[in-house]
Amino acid sequence: MRASQFFFNTQKEAPNDAELPSHILMVRAGLIKRLGSGLYSWMPLGLRVLRKVETIVRDEMNKAGALELLMPAVQPRELWDETGRWAVFGPQMLKITDRHSREFCFGPTHEEVITDIARSEVRSYKQLPLNFYQIQTKFRDEIRPRFGVMRAREFMMKDAYSFHTDFASLETTYANMYQAYSNVFNRLGLKFRAVKADTGAIGGDGSHEFHVLADSGEDGLAYCDTSDYAANVELAEALAPNVRGAATEVMRDVETPKQTSCEEVAALLNIGLDRTIKAMALIATLEDGSTQFNLLLIRGDHRMNEIKVNKLDGLHDFRFATEEEVRENLKCPPGFIGPVGVGAHVRVIADRTVAAMSDFVCGANKPKYHLSGVNFGRDLPEPSLVADIRNVVEGDASPDGKGILSLCRGIEVGHIFQLRTKYSEAMNATYLDEASQTQVMEMGCYGIGVSRIVGAAIEQGNDARGIIFPKSMAPFTVTICPIGYDKSEAVSAAANKIYADLNAAGIEALLDDRGERPGVMFAEADLMGIPHRLVIGERGLADGTVEYKGRTDAEAQMVALKNVVEFMQKVAL
Amino acid sequence: MRASQFFFNTQKEAPNDAELPSHILMVRAGLIKRLGSGLYSWMPLGLRVLRKVETIVRDEMNKAGALELLMPAVQPRELWDETGRWAVFGPQMLKITDRHSREFCFGPTHEEVITDIARSEVRSYKQLPLNFYQIQTKFRDEIRPRFGVMRAREFMMKDAYSFHTDFASLETTYANMYQAYSNVFNRLGLKFRAVKADTGAIGGDGSHEFHVLADSGEDGLAYCDTSDYAANVELAEALAPNVRGAATEVMRDVETPKQTSCEEVAALLNIGLDRTIKAMALIATLEDGSTQFNLLLIRGDHRMNEIKVNKLDGLHDFRFATEEEVRENLKCPPGFIGPVGVGAHVRVIADRTVAAMSDFVCGANKPKYHLSGVNFGRDLPEPSLVADIRNVVEGDASPDGKGILSLCRGIEVGHIFQLRTKYSEAMNATYLDEASQTQVMEMGCYGIGVSRIVGAAIEQGNDARGIIFPKSMAPFTVTICPIGYDKSEAVSAAANKIYADLNAAGIEALLDDRGERPGVMFAEADLMGIPHRLVIGERGLADGTVEYKGRTDAEAQMVALKNVVEFMQKVAL
Repeated sequence: MRASQFFFNTQKEAPNDAELPSHILMVRAGLIKRLGSGLYSWMPLGLRVLRKVETIVRDEMNKAGALELLMPAVQPRELWDETGRWAVFGPQMLKITDRHSREFCFGPTHEEVITDIARSEVRSYKQLPLNFYQIQTKFRDEIRPRFGVMRAREFMMKDAYSFHTDFASLETTYANMYQAYSNVFNRLGLKFRAVKADTGAIGGDGSHEFHVLADSGEDGLAYCDTSDYAANVELAEALAPNVRGAATEVMRDVETPKQTSCEEVAALLNIGLDRTIKAMALIATLEDGSTQFNLLLIRGDHRMNEIKVNKLDGLHDFRFATEEEVRENLKCPPGFIGPVGVGAHVRVIADRTVAAMSDFVCGANKPKYHLSGVNFGRDLPEPSLVADIRNVVEGDASPDGKGILSLCRGIEVGHIFQLRTKYSEAMNATYLDEASQTQVMEMGCYGIGVSRIVGAAIEQGNDARGIIFPKSMAPFTVTICPIGYDKSEAVSAAANKIYADLNAAGIEALLDDRGERPGVMFAEADLMGIPHRLVIGERGLADGTVEYKGRTDAEAQMVALKNVVEFMQKVAL
Repeated sequence: MRASQFFFNTQKEAPNDAELPSHILMVRAGLIKRLGSGLYSWMPLGLRVLRKVETIVRDEMNKAGALELLMPAVQPRELWDETGRWAVFGPQMLKITDRHSREFCFGPTHEEVITDIARSEVRSYKQLPLNFYQIQTKFRDEIRPRFGVMRAREFMMKDAYSFHTDFASLETTYANMYQAYSNVFNRLGLKFRAVKADTGAIGGDGSHEFHVLADSGEDGLAYCDTSDYAANVELAEALAPNVRGAATEVMRDVETPKQTSCEEVAALLNIGLDRTIKAMALIATLEDGSTQFNLLLIRGDHRMNEIKVNKLDGLHDFRFATEEEVRENLKCPPGFIGPVGVGAHVRVIADRTVAAMSDFVCGANKPKYHLSGVNFGRDLPEPSLVADIRNVVEGDASPDGKGILSLCRGIEVGHIFQLRTKYSEAMNATYLDEASQTQVMEMGCYGIGVSRIVGAAIEQGNDARGIIFPKSMAPFTVTICPIGYDKSEAVSAAANKIYADLNAAGIEALLDDRGERPGVMFAEADLMGIPHRLVIGERGLADGTVEYKGRTDAEAQMVALKNVVEFMQKVAL
């Protein structure tokens, strides 16, 4: 593509509403343009990127045997009433009334439509398994759209749905799709992790999320480098030593006049934070409606995991105790509370790690005092309950016993689910088995946020100059920057020839024939994330060379003019 | 593709709501599946066809230098208020209210959005001309959706919009797009015509429609085989001889006791219908609110063109006179009325052809009588007005003077417009010219009904057995039908090899490996419109041959097994 024939709309200014680098850079590079809240046009440059992602996703879906179709975006309410989701989906669903006052929605997802197709088209077990997918515009009316295309209201999604005679068949397709998703993200050249996920509201059994790794990611992930274990931090199991060390110290009061946090106490005592315990007061509501005072114990350097706590008996809807409730139950203000000497009405819940600690430091339930050398069994009873109630941390043992955990942050770009019979039962999607008996189909569903991937990739790859695209996604592979295209015939002739030769060699080249200054050309190419740059100048041509620089290279290098195609094939393909 | 890995849902029964062959066949062949009124899923087989159309459209747009982008389907009301179209578009526009009670529509077209982009991104004449396009899902809430995808509510459209400094530039791009559209339909292998069109409500000046020719088409078209003249019958100019023949007969009363139509009178008198004149009584409403009685004269074998009549002075909102008005003004009941002896209050408007007639037959304004041998100037005054008020007919002179006209019917699948400044003025889309003066951009817009093309192609190509696709659009190029795939190893081995060889040669083959009976395989392939068929049987293999039949061939032929790829390359590529 010749730049003079293309349309660029790079901007110097970051948009007002942008927080994330990807949002800022996508607008500044002219990949997208805002139409309204959560609504973006994909400009020619951006659409080139989006289509590359789409093409790889489609290709891997086809290779996995999924069949592409295209369902309407507008869906009738009646189908959603069958599964009850019209009522439960809430305001995120964009509802529409047509000229005949019939109700529809702009589809946020397509389980109902595809299940309707399956129940009317599938008669026999012989037709199963089936796996359909589409790549389509979806709409979710987010209450606060933000982050550009990462949380837009209108977005492009690949959604696949599989139908099976039995769970074993679903498991096979599920594994197949897991592999296809891995292939997609590998081909895209993104650092990613598949993690076990909670199935949440969509229902069903097994579920994995695929995350693009980026420091700005909304999700914390834990993974084991020496095994394939990976999970959302929300779910990753935290292990602890099975054996508690013997008590070696005597319990004693420590004066901590102003020290209310574990950090402050550890600093005062000059001990590791991992020898302290913090106590959190939580109120549970019991089945009979009465409330219960809970004291949760977490090691000083750990963090409570609310999702895990939520799953404990009575703590489904827990809340933190008020200062008044703390004083009432422990006769002590917050900051100095602890598990020693509490009454029987207090349920003490220790994290697994805490339960294995000895000689620890905790609040004394006495203003301005902590206790050191505390030991379960000797100084206080064993906890009422020992449970996994903390987030895993870097260095924890992997739950599969095959190594230790590392942490990172990720952006969810894919999610696969074993739906089982949630939708097929509600909508009566059945088939006749070999014995001509009616059976309910098993289902899976598999989503990829196609447009979101572009944003996530930029979160993973950017620097002060702009976007760093992996080669799979770059709008152009190489930009050719002639110095004085409109002034030097030698330069324009050489640039035109290199441009033609590269395209003939299958390398997508952009020829910056606009006659811009080098600084402008270089800055725009770097902003747009073009991986390779060739600079054609009279001086180099006199030596038979052109200048090459990779987007992330520190220094440029000279390449012989006669080898430039060969060179580019080596670095770019 | 192996049929066992694909999904077919052919049906024996035609859908209840289908009238047109294309609608019936698309549902029966399993190309589409109805979700609701005017809402269709494109099933895997149909999507293959749709994508082929889309790919050719995209390729020709790119070749024409248009830049692809993708605008949101959901558009804010505010933009439509700027052009006033929110109010005028009417119930065809699907209106949406989001969770924050802001108003949007599901875009029926994108003039407002693209003009908004142009006005904010284009500053200088140096950036122009620009031509953007997208291929996208649109929604028009038709009051009576029908004909399957031909008049669906949700449909796929290619819409392009160009921006220019001046009209000359618009004309250049317009001509460019005209050529690109011709290329698209030629590559699709469709018989089509581009015709001049009325610009109607979208506004602007020049406009052409592109029609796929089919007997079931909604539009009548006139074209000249010896020149490039073509127009919608609604607009095609009807010429007439300049010179009137001399009077040779004497005017006389003819008794026509029961003959009220030209056909009946001509039969009674044993003369050609082209010697008769029919008179139509129309009421015009004048500017002062008064009404005027008009007698329109059309040759007996011609038909009045209401659009042309509408353009005559005072007849913008004409209506046909009531029987009472006819009796009051002409003292005669309908059926025997004519232009001879009418009072001065009657405006006589003659079609051009009528004005050139002599010795004609017309109503006598006397019950049960007509007049023959009537001549203008001698028996009645020259008409108050001579105008083109009829539809052209087969054999009329072409308005460009380069031949005679033929007629056909067409389905509109493309429309190009010179919008001029209708939108750019309303939305203040300006640029700075060379003298740094602010100027309003000129605009063009160019639409293709991508999904409609599939239906139109089937209207053009079908027979009693099913669809006849042009090779550009067929879901598969050739179907391989092994007789006894699951029984004969020789057959399955040969079929597998031919399948692999054809695919390797770039010929999209479907291997019907389902073990169906030949009759079922043949009938389905014919229904789905697959252009070529190879039958592999043990008997043929023994002779080293396979059977070939083209979709429209009367007879099958035998092809040497060793030449089959070469043969298929010749007939299919």
